[in-house]
Amino acid sequence: MADAAAPASTEPSKSALKKAEKAAKMAQAKAEKVAKAATQTVAVVGGKKADDIIGITVSKADHFAQWYQEVVLKAEMIDYYNEIAGFYILRPPAMYIWNVIRKWFQERIEHMGVEETSFPMFLSAKSLEKEKDHVEGFAPELAWVTKAGDKDLEVPVAVRPTSEAVMYPYYAKWIRSHRDLPFRLNQWNSVVRWEAKQTTPFLRAREFLWQEGHTAHVSEKAAGEEVLEILELYAGVYEQLLAVPVVRGRKTENEKFAGGYYTTTVEGYIPTNGRGIQGATSHCLGQNFSKMFDITVEDPNQKGQHMHVWQNSWGLSTRVIGVMVMIHGDDKGLVLPPRISKVQAILIPVGLTAKMTAEEKTAHVAKCDVLLAEIKKAGVRADIDVREGYTPAWKFNDWELKGVPLRLEFGPKDAAKDVISYARRDTGEKGTIPLAELATAVPALLETVQKDLYDKADKSFREHRLVIKDWSKVVPALDNKNVVLIPFCLDPKCEDRIKDLTKSDEVTEGPDGQKAPSMGMKSLCIPFEQPEEKLAEGTKCLNPECERTANTWVMFGRSY
Amino acid sequence: MADAAAPASTEPSKSALKKAEKAAKMAQAKAEKVAKAATQTVAVVGGKKADDIIGITVSKADHFAQWYQEVVLKAEMIDYYNEIAGFYILRPPAMYIWNVIRKWFQERIEHMGVEETSFPMFLSAKSLEKEKDHVEGFAPELAWVTKAGDKDLEVPVAVRPTSEAVMYPYYAKWIRSHRDLPFRLNQWNSVVRWEAKQTTPFLRAREFLWQEGHTAHVSEKAAGEEVLEILELYAGVYEQLLAVPVVRGRKTENEKFAGGYYTTTVEGYIPTNGRGIQGATSHCLGQNFSKMFDITVEDPNQKGQHMHVWQNSWGLSTRVIGVMVMIHGDDKGLVLPPRISKVQAILIPVGLTAKMTAEEKTAHVAKCDVLLAEIKKAGVRADIDVREGYTPAWKFNDWELKGVPLRLEFGPKDAAKDVISYARRDTGEKGTIPLAELATAVPALLETVQKDLYDKADKSFREHRLVIKDWSKVVPALDNKNVVLIPFCLDPKCEDRIKDLTKSDEVTEGPDGQKAPSMGMKSLCIPFEQPEEKLAEGTKCLNPECERTANTWVMFGRSY
Repeated sequence: MADAAAPASTEPSKSALKKAEKAAKMAQAKAEKVAKAATQTVAVVGGKKADDIIGITVSKADHFAQWYQEVVLKAEMIDYYNEIAGFYILRPPAMYIWNVIRKWFQERIEHMGVEETSFPMFLSAKSLEKEKDHVEGFAPELAWVTKAGDKDLEVPVAVRPTSEAVMYPYYAKWIRSHRDLPFRLNQWNSVVRWEAKQTTPFLRAREFLWQEGHTAHVSEKAAGEEVLEILELYAGVYEQLLAVPVVRGRKTENEKFAGGYYTTTVEGYIPTNGRGIQGATSHCLGQNFSKMFDITVEDPNQKGQHMHVWQNSWGLSTRVIGVMVMIHGDDKGLVLPPRISKVQAILIPVGLTAKMTAEEKTAHVAKCDVLLAEIKKAGVRADIDVREGYTPAWKFNDWELKGVPLRLEFGPKDAAKDVISYARRDTGEKGTIPLAELATAVPALLETVQKDLYDKADKSFREHRLVIKDWSKVVPALDNKNVVLIPFCLDPKCEDRIKDLTKSDEVTEGPDGQKAPSMGMKSLCIPFEQPEEKLAEGTKCLNPECERTANTWVMFGRSY
Repeated sequence: MADAAAPASTEPSKSALKKAEKAAKMAQAKAEKVAKAATQTVAVVGGKKADDIIGITVSKADHFAQWYQEVVLKAEMIDYYNEIAGFYILRPPAMYIWNVIRKWFQERIEHMGVEETSFPMFLSAKSLEKEKDHVEGFAPELAWVTKAGDKDLEVPVAVRPTSEAVMYPYYAKWIRSHRDLPFRLNQWNSVVRWEAKQTTPFLRAREFLWQEGHTAHVSEKAAGEEVLEILELYAGVYEQLLAVPVVRGRKTENEKFAGGYYTTTVEGYIPTNGRGIQGATSHCLGQNFSKMFDITVEDPNQKGQHMHVWQNSWGLSTRVIGVMVMIHGDDKGLVLPPRISKVQAILIPVGLTAKMTAEEKTAHVAKCDVLLAEIKKAGVRADIDVREGYTPAWKFNDWELKGVPLRLEFGPKDAAKDVISYARRDTGEKGTIPLAELATAVPALLETVQKDLYDKADKSFREHRLVIKDWSKVVPALDNKNVVLIPFCLDPKCEDRIKDLTKSDEVTEGPDGQKAPSMGMKSLCIPFEQPEEKLAEGTKCLNPECERTANTWVMFGRSY
């Protein structure tokens, strides 16, 4: 199954499950150690010791998994929920980003006519069993409530892993005429998938926040149009808000949503390890669910005849935040694109030396407040750091760790020249802005940061999407942190075989931070924008063992 | 325990539980019948039969419980979740209201410095056990997850009934200095309380949406100020948005939050049955939880000494919607205050007779569109009903059922006089507005409707809050649909005794729609605004069996 938050999973064997659980526990223990170390660091910081230890202790390039854990912990995006493995607490900086995304997306789907709803979080086994492929996809991950108080429930209920089976019995009841179509509902909630696999903050958690849209249409065409309209909004969340480039495409049969008709996706790329990562998915369910749940209307083209409606479902989760962190962050910590950063510019009074009188200091800080007000008035989310007992250098590090896009410094020397000094978080570039131009220059600089972050990530993704026509070049390309576009026959078994054939002996750090021989590649998507070079008539599938003709270029890669 | 969504509950005996479960099942079956009937009605409506059957089939005065069920179902606020008893689906009209409230409240707490967070939905038994009174309050209602997939969990986890025990271990970790105070987080989520009692849409459900704020402060004074600031926001939600008057006050010991220090509340009143209803609660937890969870800071007044922080928690749930429906609705259905209605004014083209040509009709509808645009431009959430195949009379009924505050009619006769005709949903009052005044008159009329709804409800509540100094008048007052203010000693056992003593032989319809002897009265709150008449020195507690001196006037009533 493929979905917004997790790539395909098939039911693992018992021994694989045990192994995975053990690995999960070890990783959890390690994560807790990191979390503890992070706290201790903060504790020391509270005591205002050395400036250098508040930062990240490992380099992104060398220890990516540990770097990521430290960044999300120390920037206070998440905390580990020690009570239950695989769960995370989203702290205010993460929730701020999620709310920006929520507002942006909500406005746009409202405009499309999607209405908000809230269904119960529990699912009866009866509803779940209606769509066989669907239930098989989710069964191993269901959390079952079997008791209320000290009484056993007559019939256990599962916490929703997604809400198709919760909602569709009511679609059958509510949709009574083709005039009710399109029928579109969305809900913002959390879902639970008790993953046996290694969990990672934002990317794979046993509970995560998302939105799930569920719509019904009169025709395949109408459903298909909406699928792409939503996919474009998902791309917009990544590209316009998070400054993350994505490739739009369609999933192969192996990777599509369990029980659906076809799945479209936006796929991202993590330059540090060359892995692909599924961004968000918009599914056309076809008539599979409407047949199982008996959702019919009178066919507007054939009076008296009933037809099953065409359905879509689509979801975007907090995973987006993790992708953004991995792409933009650096050895100093988080790097936030201005559009999603709660604080876009932090003003730090500097140069307040011991020689200055208390009055001089007060007057300088008052001047800072005036500048802050001016910047805020220009629509910038700005703040001032006047915490006492911390050096400017300590504050610089702290705000860099937290990813604030623009640091503004104002000291007596700046005041003498009627300028403010700045440092960009993304490039480290420093400069000055005449005070008279604050109201225009600061917003413009933030837009430049936003654009440059996107352009840098886009350049990297473009350079590492290699069109490959020679099988022998595939594994070296993967080992060099690329994803590949290859001629492919689209056969599911061939896809499985390619995964096996592309395992590499090269030992690298996996997404869980463990060194291991590299995994094989999976199909990421069939990109809508195909390589400029058309597939020549009769081109063979690139798998050397495959006799079939290639159908299309498909993007493969090692992935999350 | 007392909380936002449910009044006090104590652990019921086994037989009481069985009885309650049976009653719940019977009520559920009845509710499903109503739901089915409602659907069938809609089905007939789809076939455009008689105009009269879309409405509510019973009168509010005579069959209040059934009336309420029909209104929330037929106005499409909720649907019953047939798969699992005690759960409801919130449909778009209800979610719209909840989102207006959410936005209003969120803006205001953000301004106070409250940040948003998202904690896991599960609770480990270990955390829960820390605060004994708290766990005893919630234990009978906990939903336990014991299995994931087909594997038993090593340690079962409970779905949160509220998040004190989920969050406070992290408060102990994150709050490191008194400079971190006040520390304020809020989350919007759903919680689960597997009620054995009869459930009712919005008022008592096994899962409900709410916000829960959890804050920490340096002193009792600072905590107490916030408790009241939040309570005033809750009163604002009722009074300013929902046009529902409330009485602000403090709960007695019997009715306060389990494990807390004191609870403040806003209390509403349902005129139809004279019952009090808890609106929302803002709790001061004192230092009870900070002692259990070891949340300390260095005392700013005594260097080197540690102190336990003062904590608050406060919650407002979707219950508010139910209270609003019960107060304003009438025999035609829902009546929505304009500020929370998605559609504030519905424009219905009328007088399009068979004698008119198609061109004339098209021209008339085009004119309606121009008027609609003008009304919208004035900031009114307006829509036009041009559904074909329905008579204006049918449309009138449909929008009345759904509670839209203002109906605008425009026909050739109106056009000839350059006016638009209107009908107020709340009073039925009809009139005309000159077209030239649309942009000012429509918003003004909506504000009048909002105010009149509040004033009417406020008048009713004021007339039915009786100050009573004679015990013999208490039960007759209750039987006459009043709540009462009586001199009370504040002793918990005396309060229990008063409940027993005020049971009445008069058979009335309970909140579950069953006829039964009337329940005794509970304390609703100690109103901050006490009766004008001061308690005379030495006034006795009104309970004739009680020897103690009255402490204060306390509001008692039969209640939800």
